[in-house]
Amino acid sequence: MKEAFYTYIEKLQDRITSKLEAIDGKAKFQQDLWQRKEGGGGRTRVIENGNVFEKGGVNISAVHGPLPESMQNYFKVEDVDFFACGLSLVIHPVNPMVPTVHANWRYFEMYDKQGTIVDRWFGGGQDLTPYYLFEEDAKHFHQVCKNACDKHHPEFYRDYKQKCDDYFWNTHREEARGVGGLFFDYCREKHGFSIDNWYDFITEIGDSFLEAYVPIVEKRMQLPYTPAQRTWQEIRRGRYVEFNLVHDKGTLFGLKTNGRIESILMSLPPHVQWVYDHHPEKDSEEEKLINVLKHPIDWV
Amino acid sequence: MKEAFYTYIEKLQDRITSKLEAIDGKAKFQQDLWQRKEGGGGRTRVIENGNVFEKGGVNISAVHGPLPESMQNYFKVEDVDFFACGLSLVIHPVNPMVPTVHANWRYFEMYDKQGTIVDRWFGGGQDLTPYYLFEEDAKHFHQVCKNACDKHHPEFYRDYKQKCDDYFWNTHREEARGVGGLFFDYCREKHGFSIDNWYDFITEIGDSFLEAYVPIVEKRMQLPYTPAQRTWQEIRRGRYVEFNLVHDKGTLFGLKTNGRIESILMSLPPHVQWVYDHHPEKDSEEEKLINVLKHPIDWV
Repeated sequence: MKEAFYTYIEKLQDRITSKLEAIDGKAKFQQDLWQRKEGGGGRTRVIENGNVFEKGGVNISAVHGPLPESMQNYFKVEDVDFFACGLSLVIHPVNPMVPTVHANWRYFEMYDKQGTIVDRWFGGGQDLTPYYLFEEDAKHFHQVCKNACDKHHPEFYRDYKQKCDDYFWNTHREEARGVGGLFFDYCREKHGFSIDNWYDFITEIGDSFLEAYVPIVEKRMQLPYTPAQRTWQEIRRGRYVEFNLVHDKGTLFGLKTNGRIESILMSLPPHVQWVYDHHPEKDSEEEKLINVLKHPIDWV
Repeated sequence: MKEAFYTYIEKLQDRITSKLEAIDGKAKFQQDLWQRKEGGGGRTRVIENGNVFEKGGVNISAVHGPLPESMQNYFKVEDVDFFACGLSLVIHPVNPMVPTVHANWRYFEMYDKQGTIVDRWFGGGQDLTPYYLFEEDAKHFHQVCKNACDKHHPEFYRDYKQKCDDYFWNTHREEARGVGGLFFDYCREKHGFSIDNWYDFITEIGDSFLEAYVPIVEKRMQLPYTPAQRTWQEIRRGRYVEFNLVHDKGTLFGLKTNGRIESILMSLPPHVQWVYDHHPEKDSEEEKLINVLKHPIDWV
């Protein structure tokens, strides 16, 4: 399974980076191969200063070795070995009318000291962070997520949409990071789902990513915008930074388990502002966004 | 003691904001009074878009009530009441030749359910974060810190300088946030020091702040700088954000104990950049700074 999924994410990384380069028309992804001292490594691809994409990373990695102590505590297990691989991406467009997107699909195995698998699961998800709310874009993104989920289980979309709203919640701001999408974890052999069934599910979701995001980019990337709208985007990007550095488990794990810093923090936006006590004007487009972030809604 | 110290920080806030306004010559501090639902409140003063100061906050607060559960766990105490007051400041100048400065001086009391004080202590410190390293500025800042410490104990400067280097360490970058200063905590009645002795010490340090920082600002605020130097400042400000959101105990406590978000996050810089895998050029001024941040040195 680990070879199969790694091969899948290798090809998916190629598909995604090729498509995004074609849309951008100017910038190319730069690739960095890196090794992890304790075992494994990754292939980081970063695009910067494009026509459409101001900064983005589409990374794959496969790491293995003894499970770091902080993760033993987290998973409540003893001294075991592990293997983890996944694809992780964050795309920050130039134009504030184009939303930021994040996605991650991953597979985890844990072994006893004889090398026998004692646990394994998939996890992942994708979510959309607009700066200006086009309801049809949020609906489209969620509809693609729902279509992919519905092929596998009638309740997956409902459940994983809810988990996404719960997870990407900036508790200290009492608002969502964006308009959500899907979030799932610990997808193990259970409830009649084999690990192969889960593989089929997660690759279905991965395959649907470009269909979920690209039409939104193509529809909004040419829209005009003002300096004030750009400032709003940079202020909202500050909330994105706050979520990733204060709350995001993946980021904190990476930082505290000696991950490759530049690959982890490629998720941070390029230009960001913090303005003291900023509030959007009443009945503005900016306020409309905040209202939806404070009260997540059902899009499909 | 709590009345005495609160009166002290009220006056110190006035002294510091008046002096910084006089230097800036354009922007004024805007004041926000706020109440904490569970007891107490604060007086936040923020300056933005000045000639010299791009963003800064000089805040005082005095809060009390039942100790929040997360802090009970942290202090390893049962259900007690507390009182805490302090002054906290962060100043982000426009010009990359002028360093950012942070300071905090605070007093904490804990009570049993009969209202008897069961513990009380002072804490605080100040540290300097340059974007370009003028060694004489770092020496001046540390010399003022040392002079204030030496009046109270021959080992305070050595010990609290070391604690500062240890505390403001961005573990995930393996570098210091800046060139340090002083950091001290749990200054309790012990080793022949009464709580009055500690009051004398901490107010000596607070009184020395303007002498430590203002001459540096006045010497550097008119220096010319290039757009590339400004970009470097914004990238380094990103490291400041990383420290405050990932590692700083005060910030995380505030965010997790329902503090006033805008007063806590006033510490975040106004314009910030994250550039993938940025490295300064060999033998540049930027690299000289990094070398000192990676290997903290003795300035006096």
